[in-house]
Amino acid sequence: MNYRSIAPIMGNLWSPIAAVTSRWQERSNVQIAVAISAASIVPDMPRVLLQIYKTNHSHGMIYNSGGFALNFLRRDQLDLIKTFGFVSGRDKDKLKDVPFRLGVAGNPLLQDCWGYLDCRVVNAMDGGDMTCFLADVVDGDILHEAQAEGEPLWWREARRRLPAGWMEEWDGKIAAEIEISKTRMNQIDLTPDLTHLA
Amino acid sequence: MNYRSIAPIMGNLWSPIAAVTSRWQERSNVQIAVAISAASIVPDMPRVLLQIYKTNHSHGMIYNSGGFALNFLRRDQLDLIKTFGFVSGRDKDKLKDVPFRLGVAGNPLLQDCWGYLDCRVVNAMDGGDMTCFLADVVDGDILHEAQAEGEPLWWREARRRLPAGWMEEWDGKIAAEIEISKTRMNQIDLTPDLTHLA
Repeated sequence: MNYRSIAPIMGNLWSPIAAVTSRWQERSNVQIAVAISAASIVPDMPRVLLQIYKTNHSHGMIYNSGGFALNFLRRDQLDLIKTFGFVSGRDKDKLKDVPFRLGVAGNPLLQDCWGYLDCRVVNAMDGGDMTCFLADVVDGDILHEAQAEGEPLWWREARRRLPAGWMEEWDGKIAAEIEISKTRMNQIDLTPDLTHLA
Repeated sequence: MNYRSIAPIMGNLWSPIAAVTSRWQERSNVQIAVAISAASIVPDMPRVLLQIYKTNHSHGMIYNSGGFALNFLRRDQLDLIKTFGFVSGRDKDKLKDVPFRLGVAGNPLLQDCWGYLDCRVVNAMDGGDMTCFLADVVDGDILHEAQAEGEPLWWREARRRLPAGWMEEWDGKIAAEIEISKTRMNQIDLTPDLTHLA
């Protein structure tokens, strides 16, 4: 199998871009994610899946606090991809100049975005290089100004519109992360009842 | 929280429509799914997440065989939603009149679709009413005729285009499934290392 032959399929399996916020021991953090999926057919009990790479500062915060919020970006918020996605929360307080409030699940909710989901983790699965969190959506809203626009920002659109310099920086960052993932993807903690497949 | 206020967000978190095929003990099955996500940043090691409801006949087949294939539908294959999604494989051999071959992972691959991913399960997580499978993509391709068209079929488009009678039947089927999910969603087997959140 040549990856190029399935790239158009895989490209359709990423979500809209979310600024994922978390809070642990009175410190807040934010990162960018596009690996999010709906996970409930019950309107009164909405759920989502979120994948977070273990090397990310947010990973420990979400794992320990058991919560996160998904703040989906508007199509005119490309700049937040750089602010939130290019540096680590270990090195910088990325929310220092960004207005937010704490939601009912205790996570930072950006005051200016397309819409948000405030979430509480109910289970998790090891993916080797990442953890996949299953979470209840305990609160959420579309922000008023966004309703008319209809669509959040998707990665395939953002990628076309980002300045060339940013893309180079992004591709360099991802290349380093890919090398780490390669060494870790197959080190998976199997959940006990699937060991018959190991 | 009113579900209507987050419905536009949740609606963007479903995937393109896939006919999910599986094979166990020399019997094949197929069902419709829209809860699929990309799960790897390494092009040479593609992965996906797939959620399957426990009441579905496919669930046991995938769980026991450790494999499935995702056959994404073309925009002109609306009829397959009815053929595959409205009856259970317990009652009918839904692939009886549908041309397929067995792929390298042993799963049925539809000969006529937008593109497919043949997958082997590497981990799973309990979601109460569903299981979330993490799987390696071991083979895949976009089918030649589809490349020009560019886009697979998404649920939000299909829903608008399905005949009214089908939608009524679909909504009735989903309503019954929602009632089952409500009673099961909170009966989650926690993975051992997240028990601090329970």
